[in-house]
Amino acid sequence: MKISLAQINHHIGNFEGNLKKMLEAVAVARDQGSDIVCFGELATCGYPPRDFLEFDDFVQLAYKSVDSLLEETDDIAIVLGSPTKNPEPEGKNLHNSVLFLYKREIQFIQHKTLLPTYDVFDEYRHFEPAREWGVVEFKGKKIALTVCEDIWDVGTNDPMYTVVPCDRMMPFNPDFIINTSASPFNYDHARSRIATVKANMERYRIPMFYVNHVGAQTELIFDGGSLVSSPDGNIFDEMPYFEEGIRHYDLDEVIKGGVNREQAKDKISLIHNALVLGIKDYFSKLGLTKAVLGLSGGIDSAITAVLAAEALGANNVRVLLMPSQYSSDHSVNDALALAQNLGIQHHIVPIKNVYEAFMAELQPLFGDLPFNVTEENIQARVRGTLNMAISNKFGNILLNTTNKSEMAVGYGTLYGDLCGGISVLGDVYKTEIYKLAAHINRDKEIIPLNTIQKPPSAELRPNQKDSDSLPPYDILDPILYEYIELRRDPQDIIAAGYDEATVRRVLKLVNTSEFKRHQTAPVLRVSPKAFGSGRRMPIVGKYLS
Amino acid sequence: MKISLAQINHHIGNFEGNLKKMLEAVAVARDQGSDIVCFGELATCGYPPRDFLEFDDFVQLAYKSVDSLLEETDDIAIVLGSPTKNPEPEGKNLHNSVLFLYKREIQFIQHKTLLPTYDVFDEYRHFEPAREWGVVEFKGKKIALTVCEDIWDVGTNDPMYTVVPCDRMMPFNPDFIINTSASPFNYDHARSRIATVKANMERYRIPMFYVNHVGAQTELIFDGGSLVSSPDGNIFDEMPYFEEGIRHYDLDEVIKGGVNREQAKDKISLIHNALVLGIKDYFSKLGLTKAVLGLSGGIDSAITAVLAAEALGANNVRVLLMPSQYSSDHSVNDALALAQNLGIQHHIVPIKNVYEAFMAELQPLFGDLPFNVTEENIQARVRGTLNMAISNKFGNILLNTTNKSEMAVGYGTLYGDLCGGISVLGDVYKTEIYKLAAHINRDKEIIPLNTIQKPPSAELRPNQKDSDSLPPYDILDPILYEYIELRRDPQDIIAAGYDEATVRRVLKLVNTSEFKRHQTAPVLRVSPKAFGSGRRMPIVGKYLS
Repeated sequence: MKISLAQINHHIGNFEGNLKKMLEAVAVARDQGSDIVCFGELATCGYPPRDFLEFDDFVQLAYKSVDSLLEETDDIAIVLGSPTKNPEPEGKNLHNSVLFLYKREIQFIQHKTLLPTYDVFDEYRHFEPAREWGVVEFKGKKIALTVCEDIWDVGTNDPMYTVVPCDRMMPFNPDFIINTSASPFNYDHARSRIATVKANMERYRIPMFYVNHVGAQTELIFDGGSLVSSPDGNIFDEMPYFEEGIRHYDLDEVIKGGVNREQAKDKISLIHNALVLGIKDYFSKLGLTKAVLGLSGGIDSAITAVLAAEALGANNVRVLLMPSQYSSDHSVNDALALAQNLGIQHHIVPIKNVYEAFMAELQPLFGDLPFNVTEENIQARVRGTLNMAISNKFGNILLNTTNKSEMAVGYGTLYGDLCGGISVLGDVYKTEIYKLAAHINRDKEIIPLNTIQKPPSAELRPNQKDSDSLPPYDILDPILYEYIELRRDPQDIIAAGYDEATVRRVLKLVNTSEFKRHQTAPVLRVSPKAFGSGRRMPIVGKYLS
Repeated sequence: MKISLAQINHHIGNFEGNLKKMLEAVAVARDQGSDIVCFGELATCGYPPRDFLEFDDFVQLAYKSVDSLLEETDDIAIVLGSPTKNPEPEGKNLHNSVLFLYKREIQFIQHKTLLPTYDVFDEYRHFEPAREWGVVEFKGKKIALTVCEDIWDVGTNDPMYTVVPCDRMMPFNPDFIINTSASPFNYDHARSRIATVKANMERYRIPMFYVNHVGAQTELIFDGGSLVSSPDGNIFDEMPYFEEGIRHYDLDEVIKGGVNREQAKDKISLIHNALVLGIKDYFSKLGLTKAVLGLSGGIDSAITAVLAAEALGANNVRVLLMPSQYSSDHSVNDALALAQNLGIQHHIVPIKNVYEAFMAELQPLFGDLPFNVTEENIQARVRGTLNMAISNKFGNILLNTTNKSEMAVGYGTLYGDLCGGISVLGDVYKTEIYKLAAHINRDKEIIPLNTIQKPPSAELRPNQKDSDSLPPYDILDPILYEYIELRRDPQDIIAAGYDEATVRRVLKLVNTSEFKRHQTAPVLRVSPKAFGSGRRMPIVGKYLS
């Protein structure tokens, strides 16, 4: 038996586009003599469809796509995920299902059992879990059909669910498992995905065909990396990361096993590629082509420009250099050097005159009150407004350049440097930013060395340095990681050896800047815990604040 | 038996503050000779605690509050909601529980069964549902303890759940039901709450004591309205809306029934009071006192100013009048008249000079390109920056004045008029805004009649009117209501008699402005479907867009 896995860049709600890609893949699989072609979870409507699922019309369009696919199943079976209606009056109105299509009929439907409802996932919001399990019989083989999370709760000490779906299918003696996934990237995910598949192999000793989405849906980036595993626990194949593709597998070869084809998983290189795809898909899926950003001479905006040029093409990226009276000469020079290295269009728009116009109007109100964060923020907001003016006039979408360390502690100006349609680096800590810069410069100096080596500064007052108001990043970032990614309690972080006053101060900064993060752009997610829909915190809360 | 209901304004994560209020209520109930005093859902930590629940330290603090309350239970029983740990390895780590405390012991714990995971609710994100049910025996009575949603799925045709918790408790023959709730306000909620309680009375024929939170937690406003219902289906008492309070009930009197004390429920007056409380609590729970907003002479900012003055006191509200060359004289005069009527501080800061400074810097880039939305947005962003400058310099928090109709169709400038810490009117349609104005002016002209009567305009270009780019509000708002509140399919809205082209255009405007709503302030929720955490839509989606 021959099985094809089609790793596709789906687009939420783009039924026509998703169907077209699937029909093309079916044709390729048929040409290759495949018996089955497999697609990912909710392949008809894209993932995550969120509250579009509350519209009956939306669900009907998914059924229509299934109808169109059925017409192609005279000589090949199609396995795909799609929402289906729950016929029972009790429970949620929909199931998240995997369908087995053959001979113009839906031969079998298995609903998803484990509905991830944590981090970025909201599946119990819309779906009723499965309470019945079975296998589909096809050409003398029995196949266990599963959806994403259904294979993830195997062999853990603290399972999040009370059912192990594959355990319920094993009494039917399946020959292999197909898993239709939409499992978003983080820099650890490919590793944990393989560990999960191997845990299933150890428990069930039958092959698994795991097919994932690829491509970005706003903040969520799907990395592909679809997997075929052999009963001996080897990874028979791992499909490429961040690329669409279709591959075809002979079941007997897979059962034989004995080969392991796992890909390299370098964290920084994965982050780099994920961010490029994240930018690319944000633009292409919204029908956009051009970006703008402010280039400060600092490392964050430099990296953002590099990634944007790679994602969209240098001729589609335009940068603004907006020096103030507090900007150093090298800032402008470093920014110019980068623009030249990348071959991107730049404009120099000094902000002094506009800033002074603001201060003149505010003088009657401010009187002799001293310079403070107000004046710093006005500078940042003048820059935000200039960036947005370019955006509005020329259709370039503003990229936000804030890093995760700044986002965490609220070191940024709302409606100023926090402007932008998408946050490129909002899930990358400053200490990782430096590694990303080294990675970008690994062959030649694209980002000027001075940009990398100078002490970070917002340059909003004379001789300002980030370290004036924040702990050094090599102290700050590990504390943030303990608190945000690991959700460790303050006393445990302190017990791990961090200075108590610093820990308390940092956690307070994080919790009292929730209001800023609430109003910033979606953040391309590359870590296991990004700001945004995966981290939901009260604004008026009074905890560690 | 005497039962007290304490309707309290809890504060998320403010364990000390919540405990103090509960201890005071216990003392009052004891003085009144009560046998039991009841508090709301998650009364220790406040509702909704969101991902604070992922910190063990946070949950421990809730246990500590329970310990403190236990010390007060020698002569009175306490019923309250609090998170408890799930001792089983399988399933989520926490339960959302109601505890019965007496004689310094936790006599009984009933976990919540129905975990709302829709609209603004995310409970399955954190909690494992109950799978066992019972009653607590106390002074010869059997009491069924329930948490909020547990009573809401009774007697509906399309239940969202597969279990009816009270049905599972009835075999134990409870004498009455206590429901500990945290059920957020919308203008229909008091009515549906009463209908729900009555449906339970019809089914079970035993009294119910329903205790709700009061007070706002950022966007969610809890209205109180705690209820006591008699077995005959009468509402024995309904506690006040939007006010803390404690009341004491004799069980025999409640059982006797025959009296119905439902309060009046005028939609506009409820919205008015909810918004005032929403503003008040946003400020007080963040330790803030002063507000600023831009007063345009239009109706939205006028109403926002009125509500702010009512919530915070006139002397804590400061307004900016920021005329441009496109502002009409009457705009400034209407705004001045309102400021005078309210006795609030005002400043006039014309934006012409700053706007021209921007245009001068952009001239080399813009050349002869015609005036378009870019220049309109610059004006809005100059105002946003001026408002924020006042906010930063004087500590006044900026109130956003955008209404729901504008939010829906993206008729507003990101980082301009969409700035602000909290959106006061973002859940109030323009047609409701007029009713709110009439309500405010019911005794005397607070909002100048001219503000109410003139055609709505953003005044960002000569002679601009909202109706130049949007359908009239009496057409627009009903279409938005069908789509947003009722989640009706486009073809059904058209079939209901609306012009097809208008419907398609409006729905497209809604879906393509998701990116703006993603970056705006939290919206005080007064409808059954507000923008924000209750409505989660993809940004790069391609559906009706």
